Amino acid sequence: MPQNSPERPDFFARHRALLEEAVAATAARDHWTPYPESPSKSVYGEDAAKNGEAAFQDQLDGHFELAGHPGERRVPATETSPYGFALGITYPRVTVDEAVAAGKAASGPWRAADPDTRAGVAAEILARLNAASFEIAHAVQHTTGQAFVMAFQAGGPHAQDRGLEAVAYAWAEQKRHPGAARWSKPQRKGGPLVLDKKFTPVGRGVAVLIACNTFPTWNGYPGLFASLVTGNPVVVKPHPGAVLPLAVTVRIAREVLGEAGFDPNVVLLAAEEAGDRSAGCLALHPDVRIIDFTGSTEFGDWLESNARQAAVYTEKAGLNTVVLDSTDDYRGLLGNLAFSLSLYSGQMCTTPQNLLIPRDGITTDQGVRTADEFAADLSAALDKLLGDPARAAGTLGAIVNDGVRERLDRAAAVGRTVRASAPVEHPEHPKAVIRTPLVARLDAEADRETYTREWFGPVSFVIGTDSTEHSLRILRETVSAHGALTAAVHSTSEEVLDDAELAALDAGVHLSENLTGGVFVNQSAAFSDFHGSAANPAASATLSDPAFVTGRFATLQSRRPVAPVAAEESADA
Amino acid sequence: MPQNSPERPDFFARHRALLEEAVAATAARDHWTPYPESPSKSVYGEDAAKNGEAAFQDQLDGHFELAGHPGERRVPATETSPYGFALGITYPRVTVDEAVAAGKAASGPWRAADPDTRAGVAAEILARLNAASFEIAHAVQHTTGQAFVMAFQAGGPHAQDRGLEAVAYAWAEQKRHPGAARWSKPQRKGGPLVLDKKFTPVGRGVAVLIACNTFPTWNGYPGLFASLVTGNPVVVKPHPGAVLPLAVTVRIAREVLGEAGFDPNVVLLAAEEAGDRSAGCLALHPDVRIIDFTGSTEFGDWLESNARQAAVYTEKAGLNTVVLDSTDDYRGLLGNLAFSLSLYSGQMCTTPQNLLIPRDGITTDQGVRTADEFAADLSAALDKLLGDPARAAGTLGAIVNDGVRERLDRAAAVGRTVRASAPVEHPEHPKAVIRTPLVARLDAEADRETYTREWFGPVSFVIGTDSTEHSLRILRETVSAHGALTAAVHSTSEEVLDDAELAALDAGVHLSENLTGGVFVNQSAAFSDFHGSAANPAASATLSDPAFVTGRFATLQSRRPVAPVAAEESADA
Repeated sequence: MPQNSPERPDFFARHRALLEEAVAATAARDHWTPYPESPSKSVYGEDAAKNGEAAFQDQLDGHFELAGHPGERRVPATETSPYGFALGITYPRVTVDEAVAAGKAASGPWRAADPDTRAGVAAEILARLNAASFEIAHAVQHTTGQAFVMAFQAGGPHAQDRGLEAVAYAWAEQKRHPGAARWSKPQRKGGPLVLDKKFTPVGRGVAVLIACNTFPTWNGYPGLFASLVTGNPVVVKPHPGAVLPLAVTVRIAREVLGEAGFDPNVVLLAAEEAGDRSAGCLALHPDVRIIDFTGSTEFGDWLESNARQAAVYTEKAGLNTVVLDSTDDYRGLLGNLAFSLSLYSGQMCTTPQNLLIPRDGITTDQGVRTADEFAADLSAALDKLLGDPARAAGTLGAIVNDGVRERLDRAAAVGRTVRASAPVEHPEHPKAVIRTPLVARLDAEADRETYTREWFGPVSFVIGTDSTEHSLRILRETVSAHGALTAAVHSTSEEVLDDAELAALDAGVHLSENLTGGVFVNQSAAFSDFHGSAANPAASATLSDPAFVTGRFATLQSRRPVAPVAAEESADA
Repeated sequence: MPQNSPERPDFFARHRALLEEAVAATAARDHWTPYPESPSKSVYGEDAAKNGEAAFQDQLDGHFELAGHPGERRVPATETSPYGFALGITYPRVTVDEAVAAGKAASGPWRAADPDTRAGVAAEILARLNAASFEIAHAVQHTTGQAFVMAFQAGGPHAQDRGLEAVAYAWAEQKRHPGAARWSKPQRKGGPLVLDKKFTPVGRGVAVLIACNTFPTWNGYPGLFASLVTGNPVVVKPHPGAVLPLAVTVRIAREVLGEAGFDPNVVLLAAEEAGDRSAGCLALHPDVRIIDFTGSTEFGDWLESNARQAAVYTEKAGLNTVVLDSTDDYRGLLGNLAFSLSLYSGQMCTTPQNLLIPRDGITTDQGVRTADEFAADLSAALDKLLGDPARAAGTLGAIVNDGVRERLDRAAAVGRTVRASAPVEHPEHPKAVIRTPLVARLDAEADRETYTREWFGPVSFVIGTDSTEHSLRILRETVSAHGALTAAVHSTSEEVLDDAELAALDAGVHLSENLTGGVFVNQSAAFSDFHGSAANPAASATLSDPAFVTGRFATLQSRRPVAPVAAEESADA
């Protein structure tokens, strides 16, 4: 095995303590992270920011080299920064067959390595990704449109957290059973029956990661690392609009694999031209046995229905819902919710869309507020939050692509617009496409068809209901039918909170209660919060839990009799 | 919660030590069982055998009552003993919609109970099933055709072992995450952000167990108990030819559920007339979210393709393969293999079918034996094993149904019959349909179409190959393409054994090596051997492992801020 060569680094020994801490953290579920989220010099070093930006700039308008990667040709540049410039980067071009064949050809020694070795390699990849957080932050900012600090945190350390979390689950699950055991069954007559048994975790086959435009690393790392650590080669298929963050990731993974003595083709990049539709071809390749996907409900459903040879893990779209019943901190509620709607222009799979509130109003520390008054108060809170253009740009980021912009335009015709979306000028990037959130007032009965669709982007609806009970019924029905990644409730009544918890259990969605401070419904913390539930249509997987990893490998067994008498005889001979 | 009522038994407290031992056993994988396999009076008591037989006899030609079970009408008797008499038992008749609705209606408190409570109830069910082992043994014998001792062991204690194993995995997996945790994230300024979080395992929904004719309890209990302990109601849909063993099981489960304060409809029986095709209707019901199935490849594949709303766990058919390379105990090899082919007339999903041997022969302690000589020697070993009719009947059992008998007839026309199947007269049951195994000689190239189909029943092929390398290539190819539940190799060469282990890992099948004594390839021991691998087409699940249980529930989360300042203020007021 490669890891035993004396000249090769022992990455498992280097990261063993970290891996053990990570496994313990999945069980404790307190705050835990080894990757600091602050992009400060005191943490990442004096030159990290400068070097990371330079590394990003060096890639622009050039070819992204991946040493030893298959594919002679190049994929023409597909990426444009939402801040207003083309990245101009070309990537190696591989056919679907080439990518799958190269992954398969590389998989033997990777499968033969044990889970410790694979987890060690994965932890080293994550360590180097962490060191490259500034480079990745720029790549994420200029492909997703996230503001820089968010791109650093969500695209860097938080994504690395989610990756390590998947490593921890994958490593622990493979070690649930011993590598070897002796079975000894007493017999009524004579000595026991004795067998020696071996147990070997074996990966399912070639894995494909189909990544998204908005969170290429955060949503991509869990599947990538879960597949890798369970012994599978991984073909990374980035969104044509967000290749660079994953190309950097693949480059680093291949470097570490090579140093550890493995074929770097255990991790491959399958960039495509827009319109290539290579994701569908990869998904149907008979040797592709695992697929991780983040993106549209339409393509996710297609994958689940058609990629029958593969274990398919999807995160799709849903109707994130907030139930407003009462509060003793109305100002905190408004501020918290305004920030949730504004963060990255609502282009998060976790951003609230449907705000359910009794038409006649809710009780607050500032008196009863009707649905109309609440809609106006929320709009005012948004105006206040986004009043300063520089600060607004830092919260909103930029609109990731034309699809979101067009949807925002269509939303202006829906219900009664309470707060219109407006452009914001970026202080440094005049061509950046930045828009503030739109808030529309809908009715629970009349506008059902509108709010039971997902409006991905900065679009939210204040929906008037008969009562909180009615709101909870809508939450149950719409989330059960259409899915959701988040739900939230505001109430001062323990009874209502209990009812909301029950409704969320019925609908299969995670619930946040009374968030009025520095925690937001659209944020989830690795090692503590589950992201997605696999219990409603928005996702077939949870990042991360044992179910996310157990289908990626099988534990195969061999057994052989132990014959003590024969052994004795042979010793006598 | 029901379990807290003072008058109700605390089944979890009663069985906690057993559950903890069971979880430890899944990790140790040594021999372990709490359910003695010997049907002796010293173990099960003086009257157990007599009472069990009487309980079975009392059911014949009557209606099987299930107190409080939905369904006014009755399913006419469908069961005939392979030993030559009709059971004449009618069962409650429920429609698919009634069964699913009753399960769903019963599920609330069962979901609300915690994993400890559910595991305690399951362990009590298993304890009572164990006490009913003799009754179940007669029910299994006279529906499957298994000889009595096998019906007792495989249908009773060994099935209970597999049930408890599933309970252990299901219980442990739900406890991987705490019920509650406090998350505290330090902030650069001010106090930490603090949230209290709750984590609740929630079952996926109504589960359906579609059981088989040959091992209704052994193959049925893992899915039944895995679904139950993860919080799901279970509709048990027995094979029309083997209802009674599962009807007794359902009766006992309902008794325990009722005593524990739950709605007995958490477990339901959905007996059907032959030709009702209710399995397909149940499988497509939108509220059915979990399906466990043992049976034909055709229906298993149909379930996997069509029951898209459900998590589907199948055990189907395959090409169980033995690679013969060399041996230092030829006599032991022949005796062991002859018993494997004869046990329950080869009507086990684990019975070897394809015996691959170099045409020119293998090295043995009795000289080189060619493929033809081996076929003759194996036939002679079968003749010897089955020479005495009473002993033969005790090993062979009876032919379960006409399908197996007809297949056996067809096999007489295949290749060159080396040993013909013959009837055996049962000393006590003159009408029993008993047949000895057929052995046919095939060629690896010429007869590929024949041996790449499954011939379920007492049909095996001695297949001449070019070499052991060729045999291993055939194992890789045929098992990868068509699946297998078992594989075996005989060799005195460590190199060949290594090659065979690698071939088995490639093909995704568990491997037995050099079995010449009292362990047989078609037997697998709960808590030590995995049954099925989910890594080849014969099965999508392993009995049991974490992957078998993690898809049956989701862990849902709620979170709420903790405001220490507010709490202090309220304490001061």
